[in-house]
Amino acid sequence: MVERAVFFVSDQTGVTAETLGHSLITQFASQQFRQITLPFIDSDDKARDAVRTIDEVASGDALTPIVFSSMVQPELREIVKSSAGLHIDIFDAFLEPLAAELGQRPEFAPGRAHGMSNIEAYMQRIEATNFAMANDDGGVSRNYDAADVILIGVSRSGKTPTCLYLALQYGVYAANYPLTDDELENGELPDFLLQQKEKLFGLSIAPDRLREVRKERRPLGRYSTPQQVRFELREAGKIFRRYGIPNVDTTRFSIEEISSRILDSTGVERRVRP
Amino acid sequence: MVERAVFFVSDQTGVTAETLGHSLITQFASQQFRQITLPFIDSDDKARDAVRTIDEVASGDALTPIVFSSMVQPELREIVKSSAGLHIDIFDAFLEPLAAELGQRPEFAPGRAHGMSNIEAYMQRIEATNFAMANDDGGVSRNYDAADVILIGVSRSGKTPTCLYLALQYGVYAANYPLTDDELENGELPDFLLQQKEKLFGLSIAPDRLREVRKERRPLGRYSTPQQVRFELREAGKIFRRYGIPNVDTTRFSIEEISSRILDSTGVERRVRP
Repeated sequence: MVERAVFFVSDQTGVTAETLGHSLITQFASQQFRQITLPFIDSDDKARDAVRTIDEVASGDALTPIVFSSMVQPELREIVKSSAGLHIDIFDAFLEPLAAELGQRPEFAPGRAHGMSNIEAYMQRIEATNFAMANDDGGVSRNYDAADVILIGVSRSGKTPTCLYLALQYGVYAANYPLTDDELENGELPDFLLQQKEKLFGLSIAPDRLREVRKERRPLGRYSTPQQVRFELREAGKIFRRYGIPNVDTTRFSIEEISSRILDSTGVERRVRP
Repeated sequence: MVERAVFFVSDQTGVTAETLGHSLITQFASQQFRQITLPFIDSDDKARDAVRTIDEVASGDALTPIVFSSMVQPELREIVKSSAGLHIDIFDAFLEPLAAELGQRPEFAPGRAHGMSNIEAYMQRIEATNFAMANDDGGVSRNYDAADVILIGVSRSGKTPTCLYLALQYGVYAANYPLTDDELENGELPDFLLQQKEKLFGLSIAPDRLREVRKERRPLGRYSTPQQVRFELREAGKIFRRYGIPNVDTTRFSIEEISSRILDSTGVERRVRP
């Protein structure tokens, strides 16, 4: 199958162009794409270099490249638009109608979206990340008073990446506590967790999926046997029901989806916005 | 100042709509916005509920709400479009021209962009996150053979959040090693780092900013004195120069920007795409 080149061109990081472009091209799953990010295109010279790169690919490939761009400055955007690719730019499409509604000209200032425009937001994300690290896996700190949410679940149910994502993306203070044999065998949560019961949120996962994930880490031993995995998940489910802890089955969800569902279900407010 | 409501409406997580909308509204920094995410709007009923929510805000507020939506299914998109807000939807604007170029109808499948469409990508991100955790702060594992990049810098220069972001967003294996008094005083890097010299990347930061960040963590003691901060940064700079280690000044950059610059400068390939 012939691969089509997809460029993400940005005067800044390229995160916005990547996110937008990825959402669109995943609607054409039967096609093959080769993805190239060209970030920090913030001068006339760099914009012309980007066009040259795209045009070289266009003349070598059988298929026209797709160019997702997020160029704030109109002059640079016009240069990028002159490439031989199909050009899709959010500022080109949406800045005018938005400016009309807001009754104000846009500021055409690059680096606002993912830039250091807000030092408080940056510190918030860093502090939330430190919190997640210190309170990972029932870690030493157990500073649960400061937590927005405390995830509980068996080993490898997705707690750590979800906590880190909530911290980095939203500045949310997320701790996690693993349900180990202690809790699973006697069916009780420790007092220091029950004191924070309203913050608890459970992660569950299908047994087959959990085995697959655990085998990646430790292929041998009881840890990833069908018996052990089924025992742990059954007992964890009983604990969620016993204490009325809201929970989500993470089997078919990505880290983004799990995180969004937790915020949606708990009503925890984002402290920063991406 | 009157706040204007901004809605992010999505049939999935809302991450795409948030990213797009945030890029656009930050171009109007003098205005105040109140941001509300309505995720998982994946049925006619939920779409009508979302419209009701938006319309209630519209009739109560002096300013028309802005609605950034990313609704894959045309029927649901049409319902959301019927709200009283200004409606901006990436699929509405871009899916048609893209389909024409690709010569294929889109699949209208929700949940592709941030969903579990690709289990390999999910595992890659999880494994990269585990790697970052195990190799954080010169941690026990020191599995530097497997690293794509090893960040070095003084305490609080941004190493940990950057490594975690590279892992979660791009599946990149990023380790980090703190430059402590040992290295700073004798100006030498340990052998186990020099064996991986081509993977080293330095983070620097302005002294005032570093003091500010350190004071958040530990307000008292030598750690955040002007003398100590200046000494550490001067000696770290000498180490970068001595060994020819590429480095970036993180002072004015967000986590996204630092990460993009590292990938751009090192040529390390993204293992997954957001």
